[in-house]
Amino acid sequence: MNEVVDFINVNRDRYVDELKQYLAIPSISALPQHTGDVRRAAEWTGESLRTAGMQNVRLIDTPGNPVVYGDWLGAPGKPTILFYGHYDVQPVDPLDLWTTPPFEASVRDGEIYARGAADDKGQVFMHIKAIEACIRKTGGLPVNMKFFIEGEEEVGSVHLDEFVRAHKQDLAADVVVISDSPMFDRGIPSICYGLRGLVYFQIDLRGTRSDLHSGSFGGAVANPAFVLAQVLAQMKDRGGRVKIPGFYDDVRPLSDSERAEWKKLPFNETRYRKELGAPRLFGEKGYSTLERVWARPTFEVNGLLSGFTGEGAKTVLPAVAMAKVSMRLVPDQHPDTIAGLFETYVKKTCPPTVEVKVTRMHGGKPWMTEFDNKYVRAAGRAIEKGFGRAPVFNREGGSIPVVSTFQEELGVPSVLFGVGLPDENAHAPNEKLDLGNFHNGIIASAYLYQEIAELT
Amino acid sequence: MNEVVDFINVNRDRYVDELKQYLAIPSISALPQHTGDVRRAAEWTGESLRTAGMQNVRLIDTPGNPVVYGDWLGAPGKPTILFYGHYDVQPVDPLDLWTTPPFEASVRDGEIYARGAADDKGQVFMHIKAIEACIRKTGGLPVNMKFFIEGEEEVGSVHLDEFVRAHKQDLAADVVVISDSPMFDRGIPSICYGLRGLVYFQIDLRGTRSDLHSGSFGGAVANPAFVLAQVLAQMKDRGGRVKIPGFYDDVRPLSDSERAEWKKLPFNETRYRKELGAPRLFGEKGYSTLERVWARPTFEVNGLLSGFTGEGAKTVLPAVAMAKVSMRLVPDQHPDTIAGLFETYVKKTCPPTVEVKVTRMHGGKPWMTEFDNKYVRAAGRAIEKGFGRAPVFNREGGSIPVVSTFQEELGVPSVLFGVGLPDENAHAPNEKLDLGNFHNGIIASAYLYQEIAELT
Repeated sequence: MNEVVDFINVNRDRYVDELKQYLAIPSISALPQHTGDVRRAAEWTGESLRTAGMQNVRLIDTPGNPVVYGDWLGAPGKPTILFYGHYDVQPVDPLDLWTTPPFEASVRDGEIYARGAADDKGQVFMHIKAIEACIRKTGGLPVNMKFFIEGEEEVGSVHLDEFVRAHKQDLAADVVVISDSPMFDRGIPSICYGLRGLVYFQIDLRGTRSDLHSGSFGGAVANPAFVLAQVLAQMKDRGGRVKIPGFYDDVRPLSDSERAEWKKLPFNETRYRKELGAPRLFGEKGYSTLERVWARPTFEVNGLLSGFTGEGAKTVLPAVAMAKVSMRLVPDQHPDTIAGLFETYVKKTCPPTVEVKVTRMHGGKPWMTEFDNKYVRAAGRAIEKGFGRAPVFNREGGSIPVVSTFQEELGVPSVLFGVGLPDENAHAPNEKLDLGNFHNGIIASAYLYQEIAELT
Repeated sequence: MNEVVDFINVNRDRYVDELKQYLAIPSISALPQHTGDVRRAAEWTGESLRTAGMQNVRLIDTPGNPVVYGDWLGAPGKPTILFYGHYDVQPVDPLDLWTTPPFEASVRDGEIYARGAADDKGQVFMHIKAIEACIRKTGGLPVNMKFFIEGEEEVGSVHLDEFVRAHKQDLAADVVVISDSPMFDRGIPSICYGLRGLVYFQIDLRGTRSDLHSGSFGGAVANPAFVLAQVLAQMKDRGGRVKIPGFYDDVRPLSDSERAEWKKLPFNETRYRKELGAPRLFGEKGYSTLERVWARPTFEVNGLLSGFTGEGAKTVLPAVAMAKVSMRLVPDQHPDTIAGLFETYVKKTCPPTVEVKVTRMHGGKPWMTEFDNKYVRAAGRAIEKGFGRAPVFNREGGSIPVVSTFQEELGVPSVLFGVGLPDENAHAPNEKLDLGNFHNGIIASAYLYQEIAELT
């Protein structure tokens, strides 16, 4: 391993230059006008796998964006790792809040800023470079490796379940490794053992055929923007608790031992609040901030649009109003159940003075694993070697729906081996990745393959 | 008058062709990029006044858009009419809902479709053509006439009060005539004797420094889009009554006689509802639709914007949320008083988990006059001659703040002599003016000058 680590250290600058090329491709899966860019990112991913020494590299078509597949199976008798990641990225608006353009990666203070830097191109590329170093210096990998990089993660991995079911044989493995999550804190690497699930909706209300003059008609008909506010306000009480009947029925209570473990984590509420720039922290009564984010479900408004939103004043009574809303779910809530409860509640709370349409968008199940399984422990040792300190064990507030799919379809456990940071701005302007963590992550990845190889 | 009317009838098509040119100028005063077009519309207005035979025509600069002034003072001993109108227009979004482009006037089924067709270029042009016909056929006007056409009506006539105060002498008159309102219904001309006032605000909430990932941070901080919904929902109760404390304190109760008069008007609720395309009519409990629109104040949401509003799903926790809101006021509410009550209430209902900013935009006082004054009766006779039936007397839900200004600064009563229709789509896509009403309106305007001349 010394030679491999030396190689990684020597090539540090080259890795950053290559990563910049990867980040330059605006592979925004949510926007139809970027379909070509999405494909270009898939091709770029495949090419870099080939360069790294992976075999059978190919793009596999799906009804949506292609999956990039590649493998290296030259370690008979050793475990097989299925590495999962994604090459697509989030939209970039509001563009004017980016300090530098989202698709021209820029390094400032040891961090690389670009859409996809942390989520997830940077973390995918970290493994590609670890593989390259192993193969270049030792002629191969200590384990068998399958790479499975999709292009629809940011639009809910809509074709992934079907793909995994159709390719069960090809994807067979002993463990799934995913690097698509942040560490607990700067300097505190972590292994994540729980994720929240998600259901996402668009609510559309229509009050009248067309926009009206708010003077000539104001008072005579319901205002869909106001009705939308009423409907949304009914979703949570003043204490931050979701009011949808039955919403909490399947929530697994937080155990005393887990609460006690989390209390020991070095979490500074004041610093956290200041970093977010929030006047106050706020969430469900009776829970700490970590508990609220990791172990409690939420209801959030993700977007609002109605009427006149430009500069100045326009006295319009809008015809329509739209909200994007989503709920993060925790074990053992099921997205389908929650979706049903939500739709019923919207229809109940929405008055008959407007037409309402509820459209379900993507989602995923929550996930949780035991954190003392052998793969998780192997990942812990690898992290310690790459980062110089043992990881903490945490849950995450985000969702990686594919983890449940791998568990259910392939019967394979996942190890979440993430090197982002909590302030990485994934899904927001100025997304970034710490280049020190990127570098240590390449070394830790190489150690991870070694540690898993030694499990047999 | 016969010669004048014949001239108007003969020139019917030419008037429409000329109006199309006027409507082609995108004089949107709310949008800074149209400043040049606004000036162009002012110049066009002035030129057409000159062509009509008006004298002393000039553009008078203000700190904003110029006022177009012109007069004809060749009837000594006769009353002086101050005609007020505006050459600026509303924005046109959402553009995709226009059947034909808003600045390429299109005639369909006897109606001309374009932004400004009814509000107010079409109605201003109607008087210009009436003046032209009188001067062309009789060598002059039966009354003295001052034309005062402003370019900031759609942004709240921000410099108008100051302008009127500064030009009291120049604007001195016996009566103000304004054609900037709809008739009661198709085939039912009307004289309007009451208008609502307006206060308009923008509310801006900020939760965090930047947008956040709704998974990683959802549950830990207040969501400004949700808080905005809560704040807005607090503005009205389920019965449509505004909840701002003190809001109704100065509302002049509707008299039994006025209610009785309105009950006699040929108003068809079912047709009204169907024309608007609303599932149901809805408004303040205890009042009829006409009462709600003409005699009761309202709270409306005019616009909403927050987070992700594109196609698809983005799991963002928005940093900011914005609403445009306005209240229509009735006698004797005062905009300043209501603005103060509103700001206090927003700050009271908004939790300390977000930063709130309330920005007051334009507004105006409500107005009401006795409808049996001699000018109103003269207008009634003119309408009857132009349209073949006597007008009904109504109030209007919209606001023309300048009416109060003329009353207070010049001590002059106003006659609202409007020929639009309730479904004219002022401030909405597919704004239109009925060309039959436009034509009859030119004839009625010529009669109006005659009727007012005979009052002495």
